[in-house]
Amino acid sequence: MTIRIGLLGYGTVGKGVIEIIHSHQERIQALLGEPVEVTGVLVQHLKKKREIPSSILVTSDFDRLLLQDIDIVLEAIVGEEPSFTYCKKAIEQGKHVVTANKEMYAIHGKELKELASKHSVSVGYESTTVAGTPVIRTLQQLLQVNQVEKVEGILNGTSNFILTKMRQDGTSFEQSLKEAQQKGYAEADPTNDIKGYDAFYKLMNISELLYGKQPNWDDVYVEGIDRVDPTQILEASFMDKKIKHVATIEWKDGDVRASIQPISLTEHHPLYSIDGVQNGVVIHTDLAGPLTLSGPGAGASSTASGMIEDFITIFQQSYNNVHQFQ
Amino acid sequence: MTIRIGLLGYGTVGKGVIEIIHSHQERIQALLGEPVEVTGVLVQHLKKKREIPSSILVTSDFDRLLLQDIDIVLEAIVGEEPSFTYCKKAIEQGKHVVTANKEMYAIHGKELKELASKHSVSVGYESTTVAGTPVIRTLQQLLQVNQVEKVEGILNGTSNFILTKMRQDGTSFEQSLKEAQQKGYAEADPTNDIKGYDAFYKLMNISELLYGKQPNWDDVYVEGIDRVDPTQILEASFMDKKIKHVATIEWKDGDVRASIQPISLTEHHPLYSIDGVQNGVVIHTDLAGPLTLSGPGAGASSTASGMIEDFITIFQQSYNNVHQFQ
Repeated sequence: MTIRIGLLGYGTVGKGVIEIIHSHQERIQALLGEPVEVTGVLVQHLKKKREIPSSILVTSDFDRLLLQDIDIVLEAIVGEEPSFTYCKKAIEQGKHVVTANKEMYAIHGKELKELASKHSVSVGYESTTVAGTPVIRTLQQLLQVNQVEKVEGILNGTSNFILTKMRQDGTSFEQSLKEAQQKGYAEADPTNDIKGYDAFYKLMNISELLYGKQPNWDDVYVEGIDRVDPTQILEASFMDKKIKHVATIEWKDGDVRASIQPISLTEHHPLYSIDGVQNGVVIHTDLAGPLTLSGPGAGASSTASGMIEDFITIFQQSYNNVHQFQ
Repeated sequence: MTIRIGLLGYGTVGKGVIEIIHSHQERIQALLGEPVEVTGVLVQHLKKKREIPSSILVTSDFDRLLLQDIDIVLEAIVGEEPSFTYCKKAIEQGKHVVTANKEMYAIHGKELKELASKHSVSVGYESTTVAGTPVIRTLQQLLQVNQVEKVEGILNGTSNFILTKMRQDGTSFEQSLKEAQQKGYAEADPTNDIKGYDAFYKLMNISELLYGKQPNWDDVYVEGIDRVDPTQILEASFMDKKIKHVATIEWKDGDVRASIQPISLTEHHPLYSIDGVQNGVVIHTDLAGPLTLSGPGAGASSTASGMIEDFITIFQQSYNNVHQFQ
């Protein structure tokens, strides 16, 4: 039987999802034992011209998409709503959900997880945090006995690009931001990136996963990179240091502590060498030691990749439960 | 019902395994739904004084260990034999196996995997490669749709320590090796490390996993670090480069190509910043981009940690197959 996907959003990530499912069809089928198809795509404006095969339903009506007998929803839209309403409805109707929406998931992740458990479906959210670089699934699947004592991360590519640029070329914050926008890394409104909110949402998703809870949002110190000036960067350079925008989460004195701020790192810090749009995390574990994982933290292909890997994991579980020990 | 472990070897890693099972008993039980105990330990010399609880059988007779009704064998001895014979026998009697033995697994891994499949048991081998840093399980579980085009790795901590020392302190190869031995990183006979054989075995295990085959061993160019002299390192430093011992494996022209040799890297290479006894790999994927994973590549706690995480994964599969969707 074909596995049927309903895709929410047809921006760069949504397009990436369809491309991968097309280009990797054979591999996916080998992994799951069944063919996979995108049955319908939810878009905001129906009239916009798009190159979508005519076999795929294109609709702006979520309920119509759900009627297509889909097995799973891949959600690639931004912002809290209507994303949350859609995901909730999908789960209530017994569909699995994979989301790349960091803001929505930071706010409603716990609720969605609980709902999914009630309806015997799964929620994948790898791409909410560091795109397709498998930070979430490393914490979730690969470190189970290990206690994670602390996670430090460079979680926003735009901020890291700007800080790298300022250091390497001596340009101002404004000039560097402009270049980030020209290269398509930063949005027209870059507030979420440069004020640290984007990194904040990602950190909250890590917190939920690690500790089953988030700190009180008001108690988290969040400082963006918009007040970092070239002099500070130069001073750090003189001491062989780099200023990096670091998000930290740890369990301390019986509670979760989190902060996000520019700090200067020596070359011995594992995040020191993560430059440009790259993202990375250091996972401090009690047994395996500190593990560093880095890779692209954004981009259509990487984000879509994380969503497809989530999708595979979800269906492989069901598949393996039938074809045990093969 | 209690899950019963037979442990092979009581060196630093074997001790580490017992320690973790003791210290993390509650967590392990929460993960698997059952208590876990080390039922017996196989040692080479029975007369040696050891602090092992009297409830655990200590024997030098493998068959006697197998008679203890164990569910899984954790193998922490070195060298091809008798490790292979033990693992084979265990699998044939329906026991799962987790091994940390890179040499044995590079030679017999494929055979053991096939045998395990026939007997409906699993083989875990995370700790054969970069100890508890989850390189194997990242490739195995987290990158399924992604095609891995190439893996580059610093796979031997002793070599990396020596090269780092030579660059930082300007010491000779011999002096640096001596220091590695004093610190307990290098064996009394350091041949396997400095000639590249240790990295070679690890690379072969990665090859088997990625491509289901290994290159012809004679076709792999293997050069150790024993001919690197301080002048080369100094010259590299002048050009802001570092000489690193890099193992590379890729699929090219219809076959697997592998090499292991000292090469000089610029600061833009993700392995450039991996210094000292740290190990790391760059996984070049077609969708998620290049991912870098680094951490301790040796050490009792890290190696034992990788074995226990393997152990958890194996039993969790069975557990989840019973308690689906919880």
